[in-house]
Amino acid sequence: MTTIKDSVHDHIEVSGVAADLLDTPPVQRLRRIKQLGTVALVYPSANHTRFEHSLGVYHLADRALAHLDIAGQRADRVRAAAILHDVGHSPFSHNVEDVVARRTGKEHDDVDELVTEGEVAAVLDDHGVDPDAVAALIRGDGELAQLVAGELDVDRMDYLVRDAHHTGVPYGTIDHGRLVRELTFIDGDLVLDEGNVQTAESLLLARALMNPTVYSHHVARISKSMLRRGAEALLETTEIDAEQLRRMDDHQLSVALRTHDASRAFGRRLADRDLYKRAVWAEMGDVGDDLLDASHDEIRAFEAEVAADADVGEDAVILDVPGRPSMRESTTGVLVGGEVRRLDEQSTLVRALQVAQREQWRLGVYAPEATWKPSGRPPSACSASRPTARSSAT
Amino acid sequence: MTTIKDSVHDHIEVSGVAADLLDTPPVQRLRRIKQLGTVALVYPSANHTRFEHSLGVYHLADRALAHLDIAGQRADRVRAAAILHDVGHSPFSHNVEDVVARRTGKEHDDVDELVTEGEVAAVLDDHGVDPDAVAALIRGDGELAQLVAGELDVDRMDYLVRDAHHTGVPYGTIDHGRLVRELTFIDGDLVLDEGNVQTAESLLLARALMNPTVYSHHVARISKSMLRRGAEALLETTEIDAEQLRRMDDHQLSVALRTHDASRAFGRRLADRDLYKRAVWAEMGDVGDDLLDASHDEIRAFEAEVAADADVGEDAVILDVPGRPSMRESTTGVLVGGEVRRLDEQSTLVRALQVAQREQWRLGVYAPEATWKPSGRPPSACSASRPTARSSAT
Amino acid sequence: MTTIKDSVHDHIEVSGVAADLLDTPPVQRLRRIKQLGTVALVYPSANHTRFEHSLGVYHLADRALAHLDIAGQRADRVRAAAILHDVGHSPFSHNVEDVVARRTGKEHDDVDELVTEGEVAAVLDDHGVDPDAVAALIRGDGELAQLVAGELDVDRMDYLVRDAHHTGVPYGTIDHGRLVRELTFIDGDLVLDEGNVQTAESLLLARALMNPTVYSHHVARISKSMLRRGAEALLETTEIDAEQLRRMDDHQLSVALRTHDASRAFGRRLADRDLYKRAVWAEMGDVGDDLLDASHDEIRAFEAEVAADADVGEDAVILDVPGRPSMRESTTGVLVGGEVRRLDEQSTLVRALQVAQREQWRLGVYAPEATWKPSGRPPSACSASRPTARSSAT
Amino acid sequence: MTTIKDSVHDHIEVSGVAADLLDTPPVQRLRRIKQLGTVALVYPSANHTRFEHSLGVYHLADRALAHLDIAGQRADRVRAAAILHDVGHSPFSHNVEDVVARRTGKEHDDVDELVTEGEVAAVLDDHGVDPDAVAALIRGDGELAQLVAGELDVDRMDYLVRDAHHTGVPYGTIDHGRLVRELTFIDGDLVLDEGNVQTAESLLLARALMNPTVYSHHVARISKSMLRRGAEALLETTEIDAEQLRRMDDHQLSVALRTHDASRAFGRRLADRDLYKRAVWAEMGDVGDDLLDASHDEIRAFEAEVAADADVGEDAVILDVPGRPSMRESTTGVLVGGEVRRLDEQSTLVRALQVAQREQWRLGVYAPEATWKPSGRPPSACSASRPTARSSAT
Repeated sequence: MTTIKDSVHDHIEVSGVAADLLDTPPVQRLRRIKQLGTVALVYPSANHTRFEHSLGVYHLADRALAHLDIAGQRADRVRAAAILHDVGHSPFSHNVEDVVARRTGKEHDDVDELVTEGEVAAVLDDHGVDPDAVAALIRGDGELAQLVAGELDVDRMDYLVRDAHHTGVPYGTIDHGRLVRELTFIDGDLVLDEGNVQTAESLLLARALMNPTVYSHHVARISKSMLRRGAEALLETTEIDAEQLRRMDDHQLSVALRTHDASRAFGRRLADRDLYKRAVWAEMGDVGDDLLDASHDEIRAFEAEVAADADVGEDAVILDVPGRPSMRESTTGVLVGGEVRRLDEQSTLVRALQVAQREQWRLGVYAPEATWKPSGRPPSACSASRPTARSSAT
Repeated sequence: MTTIKDSVHDHIEVSGVAADLLDTPPVQRLRRIKQLGTVALVYPSANHTRFEHSLGVYHLADRALAHLDIAGQRADRVRAAAILHDVGHSPFSHNVEDVVARRTGKEHDDVDELVTEGEVAAVLDDHGVDPDAVAALIRGDGELAQLVAGELDVDRMDYLVRDAHHTGVPYGTIDHGRLVRELTFIDGDLVLDEGNVQTAESLLLARALMNPTVYSHHVARISKSMLRRGAEALLETTEIDAEQLRRMDDHQLSVALRTHDASRAFGRRLADRDLYKRAVWAEMGDVGDDLLDASHDEIRAFEAEVAADADVGEDAVILDVPGRPSMRESTTGVLVGGEVRRLDEQSTLVRALQVAQREQWRLGVYAPEATWKPSGRPPSACSASRPTARSSAT
Repeated sequence: MTTIKDSVHDHIEVSGVAADLLDTPPVQRLRRIKQLGTVALVYPSANHTRFEHSLGVYHLADRALAHLDIAGQRADRVRAAAILHDVGHSPFSHNVEDVVARRTGKEHDDVDELVTEGEVAAVLDDHGVDPDAVAALIRGDGELAQLVAGELDVDRMDYLVRDAHHTGVPYGTIDHGRLVRELTFIDGDLVLDEGNVQTAESLLLARALMNPTVYSHHVARISKSMLRRGAEALLETTEIDAEQLRRMDDHQLSVALRTHDASRAFGRRLADRDLYKRAVWAEMGDVGDDLLDASHDEIRAFEAEVAADADVGEDAVILDVPGRPSMRESTTGVLVGGEVRRLDEQSTLVRALQVAQREQWRLGVYAPEATWKPSGRPPSACSASRPTARSSAT
Repeated sequence: MTTIKDSVHDHIEVSGVAADLLDTPPVQRLRRIKQLGTVALVYPSANHTRFEHSLGVYHLADRALAHLDIAGQRADRVRAAAILHDVGHSPFSHNVEDVVARRTGKEHDDVDELVTEGEVAAVLDDHGVDPDAVAALIRGDGELAQLVAGELDVDRMDYLVRDAHHTGVPYGTIDHGRLVRELTFIDGDLVLDEGNVQTAESLLLARALMNPTVYSHHVARISKSMLRRGAEALLETTEIDAEQLRRMDDHQLSVALRTHDASRAFGRRLADRDLYKRAVWAEMGDVGDDLLDASHDEIRAFEAEVAADADVGEDAVILDVPGRPSMRESTTGVLVGGEVRRLDEQSTLVRALQVAQREQWRLGVYAPEATWKPSGRPPSACSASRPTARSSAT
C-alpha cells in the first residue's frame, strides 16, 4: 500500500489495481492537465491538476464503497473508474473539448480506446478487472456508475472542495464527509438518506456560487474562447489532427500554439495574459433563439459578419454562446419520510437555482482592446439578436 | 498597540479606546458567555465566546472603516460599538433572552445603562467618545449603525465564519474579506458595490444553511428550552431577579441552576446531557394561528394541559414555538447598473430563501424520554392545533 | 453508531463502549473543563475543552488500533481508556492539580475510583470491559498503555493540533495522520517505523515551540498561580475539601472563588483579567538549588518573607517555581536500520531540545501592579537565591 | 487598485508599479514555472508557481514596509523587487540552475538584463523607479535588500507557508504575521525585535523539517537529477543554448525534452514518472573530500567510470552530490536585552540545526530500475570514496 499526501484529503491510501493504474502514462499525463484550464488566469493559485483530483475522487469513492459495504470485483471496478474517469480529457480540461468533439465525436467521458487497450487495459487485466465494465462506469452506465458519474457522484464532491482550496474562494467548502456517509441505494438509485435535504441543497448551492465566481468568470470564459480559437487554427493550418490534439497535455498545446503561425498570436496573448475584453455581454432574454441554438458554423459566420462590419480581421471577434442552462443534479434523490423524492420537487431553493442559472447566463462578444471598442449599440450581427438592453462592456 | 491572536482572523491589532474597553469588566465577562449557548451540546467544539466574537467584529469594523475612509471620532464610535455590541447579552447568549426581556423589557441590544455608566462610560469619556452615541449605534440608530447592526453588518460576517470554524460545519465560510471590501455608502445606505449580487447571496445562503444545521438544530432547541425553563424556575422560586439573571455569566447560571431546588433537575440534566426528546415536531402548515401567535402565558397553559392529559408533572412538557420567520437581511441593498436594488427584488435565490425559511419552521413538544412517549396522535393541546400530518418524533 | 462533528478531525464515529461512556456524567463533566485552563486569558479563542480533546484522542486511538490490527477486548480497553483518560482532571485542567495532589495524593491520571465505581464501571461491565484494566491503561501500565499514556501517545498528537487550531498559534500543526500510520510494536515497545526520525523530531519540536508561546506563556503562568492561590484559600477557609475541589468543574470553581471571602479578590481579578505582573523573572542559572527544590511550605515561607520585606499583604506576592525540566518523550523509540534507537541518542535536535528546555526555564515572582514595583534588585528572599543577573520585569 | 485572490494570503491588493509589473511578459512567464520543480512527482498537489509566490512575497513585503514605516520611492523599489525577484529563474525553478550557471555564469538572482531592459524597465521608468536599484535589491545589495533577499526575508516566509499549503505537509506553517510585525532595523541590520528568539527559531525549524520531507525528498532529487541530465543533453546536442534554456518555461522544456533524440528518454521517463532508483545513498562521513568537492567534469567522469564498470550506458548512472551544507539564516539577528545577537550564538536549537543538516546530507547514485542493481558494495568510483557503511538502497 502506498500513502500519498494530498493538500485536500491529507493522506490517501492507494493499493491494488488503483496503485498500478496510477503508474500508467494516461494517468500520469493528467499531472499536466490543469483541473480548471484557464481559470488560473483569474485565480493565480488555481494550478491544481486532473491527477490530484483523480486521486481525490478515488479516495472519496473508496470511502463511499466502504460505507455502502460494497467490496470485491464490483468495488475494484468503481475504484478503477474513479482513477481513470478523466483520462479522456483534452488539454486544459473542458476548454477545447468542443473543438475535439466536433471532429472526433468523442466527449471526455468517452474513454473506450484509452481504457480497453494498451497499458491501462493490461493493468486492469492483471487485476482481473474488466476494462469494458470500467469504461461503461465512466460513461455513466450501470447502477454503480452513479457513484462516479451521477448526480451525487464523488467527482463533484472532490472538485468543489479542491477548487475552493486552490482558488481561495470559500464557496465550495461542502461537507463531503457527511455527503459520503449519507449515501444509500434505494431500488438501484443512489440517494441521500433521511434527514439530508439540506445536505443535498448545500451541494447544489456550492456549485451555484462557484459557477459565476470561478467556473464562468468572464475572464476565464474569454481566455477559454481564445484557447479554442487557437486550437481551431492549429487544426486548420497544421498537420495536427483532432485525435492528436485530444491526447496532448497542457504543455504541448501551450507550446504548439506559440510555435505555429496561425495560432501564434493567440498563444502569445494567452502566455502574456494579454486578453481580449468584453465588447458585448448580454442576458438570455436579450438573445434570440436563433443565436442561442446556432451551430458552430453559424457562429463562425456571425463572427465574420461582425468583423467585416467593424472592419477588423476575423480573429478580432469572438462570439461566445454558452449552452442553455441545465442542472442535472437537481434530480438528485433524497429520502424524505421513507420515500425517495427528487430534490427539485422537494426543495424551494433548488427550484430557485434553476431560475437563477438562467438569469446568470450571458452571451459574450470579445475583442482585442485596441482593435475596436464596443459602440453604444452592439455589433450588427448581435444586435440582430437584440443583445442590447442590459448588455455591459468592460 | 496590542496584537491579539485570534483563531479566525489571526492577528488583531487593538489600540486606543478599543484596547481600553477590552479591559473593562462588562467586556471581560463576555469571556464567560458562549457564543452559541447550548449548541455545544450538539457540536462539542463550539465553545467559543462572545469575547472573541466581539474582537472579530471590531477587527472587521476597523477594516471596513479603513476601506470606507471613515476616521476620527466617527470611526472611534463604531469601533467602541463593535467591542461593546454584545455586552447586553444574558448568560448563554440568546438562550434566556426572552425570559429576561419579558420581565425587564430589555433585549440584548439595549445596553444603555451598561455603556453610559460605570467603567465603560469612564473609558469612553477618557477617549472623548460619547457613550450615548455608542449606545445608539448598538441599538441600530444612525447611518454608521448599519456597519455593526444592519443587514450587511460585520457582526454577521464574523459569526458565520467563526461558528463554522468552531462547529466544524463548513457552510458558514463566507468571503468576509470581499464583503468588507465591497461595502459602500449610497445616499446614506450601506450597500454592496456593483457586481456583488452573488456576494450578497452567498451571505444569506451561508446563514440559510447554518440555520437548520447549527443554530436551530433540534437538540440545540431542546436544550435551550430546558435552560429557559430552569431560568424561569430560578426567577419564580429564588431571590434572583431578572436584572441579576441578565448580568450573570454562563458559569453563574450553570451553578445556580444546579444549586436551587426548583431548577436542580434541569441543571443536572443539562450538565449530564440527559436531554428531553421530541414528542411532536410539526410543520407550520399543521399549526394553527392561535398557537403560532400564543403569548407566553398561553403557552404555559397549553403545556399544563398537555401534562395533565398525559398525567405527568408540568416540568415534563415543554412546548417550543419559534417566532414567525423573518429575514431582515433580504432587504440588503446592492448596486446593479448604478442603481441600489433590494436583494430580494434582485435575487431569485433570496426570494426562495424566504419561502425555504418558512418550510424549515418547526414547532416542538419535548418530554423526558422515560415519562411519556408520543402516541400515534400528538397530545391533545397540540392536536387542537393539528400538528398531526407530517409530525415526526425522535 | 453516532457521528460527531469535530472542528479538528471533522467526523468522529463513536460506537459500542465508547458511545455509552460518552453519556456518563464524569465524561460529560469534561465539557466544563477547559483544555488549557487560564491560557484563554492570553489566547482568547482557546476555550476548547477536555471533552472534545477526549473525543479526538479516542478517534486517533481508534485509527492506531486499526493500523496496528488490534481488535476485540484489547482494543475496547484502549478505546475506553482514550475516552476516560482525562476524567481525573481538576477544574481548569492542570492548573490546580498540585493543590489537590498535596492533599489527596492523587494526580489526574489516578482515576481508579472514577472508573471502577458508579456509572462508568456499570457501562464498562455492560460491555464486558474490565474497569481495573482500563484504569491501569490510564495510569500507564501495560503494553497498550503506550498508545494513550506513553511517549508516542495519541493524547499528545491530539492536543498539539487542537491547541494550535484554537489558539491560532501554528506551531502545533504536526502530521498526526503520518504519526499514527507509522506506529509499530517491536518487542513490546511502541516505536515509529523505519524512516521516521524526522517525524518523531517534528512531534518534539512542535511541543518545544508551543511550550513557551502557549503553555508556559508568562500570563498563563501568572493567572494559573493566582488560581492556585485562590484554590488554596478556599480549602483553608471554607468547608470545601480537596476531594470536592477535584470533582468541581470550571464553572463551579469560578463561582466559588468569587463567592467566598478569602478567595474573592483572586476570583474577581481572574474574572476581570486584572492580573498580577512579573516582579522578577529569573533564569535557572540565577536561581539556587535550595529554591529550585523548595517544598510548598518553603515557598510559602519565602513569599511571606518577601511580602513582609515589601510591607505588603501576603496575597500580594506569588512565587512561581516550575519543576526542573524533563522531556520524557525524548526516549521515544525509532526504528533505524532495523534497530530500535532512542530518539535522544539518534537526534542532535532532540538533544538540543533538552538543553533549550533548561534555557527556557524561568522563575517568576508576581505582584499586583499597584502594590509594589520591582526595585532594581529583586526582593530579598529571591536575591538570596540570586535571581539577579538577567532577570526582567514587565 | 486590483485585488487578487490568493489561496494562502486571501486577498492581495496590488496597485502602482507592482500592478503594472504583473502585466509584463517576464512576470507572466512565472505562471509557467512550478515553485517546487519536480517535487510534484512526490507531492501531487504541489503545482503552485513562482507567479503566485511572487505575489505573496509582494504582499508580505508591502506589510513589512507599512510596519517599518517605509514609504515613497524606497518602498516602491522594494515592492518592485518583490514582484521581480524570481524572474531570473530557469524552468522548473532551481532544478536546472546549475546547468545554466555553468555556461552563462548567471544564477537566478542575476536579473540585470531582465530588469534594466525591455518592458520591465519601461514600466519601472514610467513609475520613476530606478531599474538598477531594483536589480541591486534582488541581488541582495543594500539595506532594504534584507527584506527580500536576506536571512529574514519575506521570500522565505511566503514559500514555507505556501509549500505547506500545497504539499499538505504541515511543517512549514510559520506565523508569518508575527514575523513581519516583529521586524525592525537596528544600525542598518534587519533583526527581530525583543522577545522573539523562539519566533526566529520557528522559522529555521520549519525549514529544517520541510527540507528532508519536501525539498530534498529523494524522489525529488532523483527526478531533478534526471531533468538536469536531459537539459545537458539538449544543450550538447541541439541548437538550444544556455541563454535560451534559461528563458524557457516549464512547458517549453518539458516539450523540448520529449522532442529531441538525446533527451527523449529522460523526457519520457519524467512525463511517465518512470524514475531511476537509488543505487547508493551515502552519508557525509562515508564520502571522501575529493568527491564532496568534485567539479562537474570530475563527477561526469566518475559517472562514466561507474557505468563502464557496470557495463551499462552512460545515461544509466547519475551521481548526485549536494553542496556542503550551509545555513545562512542562522546568522539572523535577534534583539535580546537591548542588544542584537546572532541567532546561532543565542540559540542552542539553531546550533543543533547546523549539525543536523550535516547529518541529513546524502550522496546519491541513481540508476534505472532494470539496468543494474546495486551490489552489496557500491560501484567502484564511489567505493573509492567509501560510501559503504550506512548506505542504503531503495
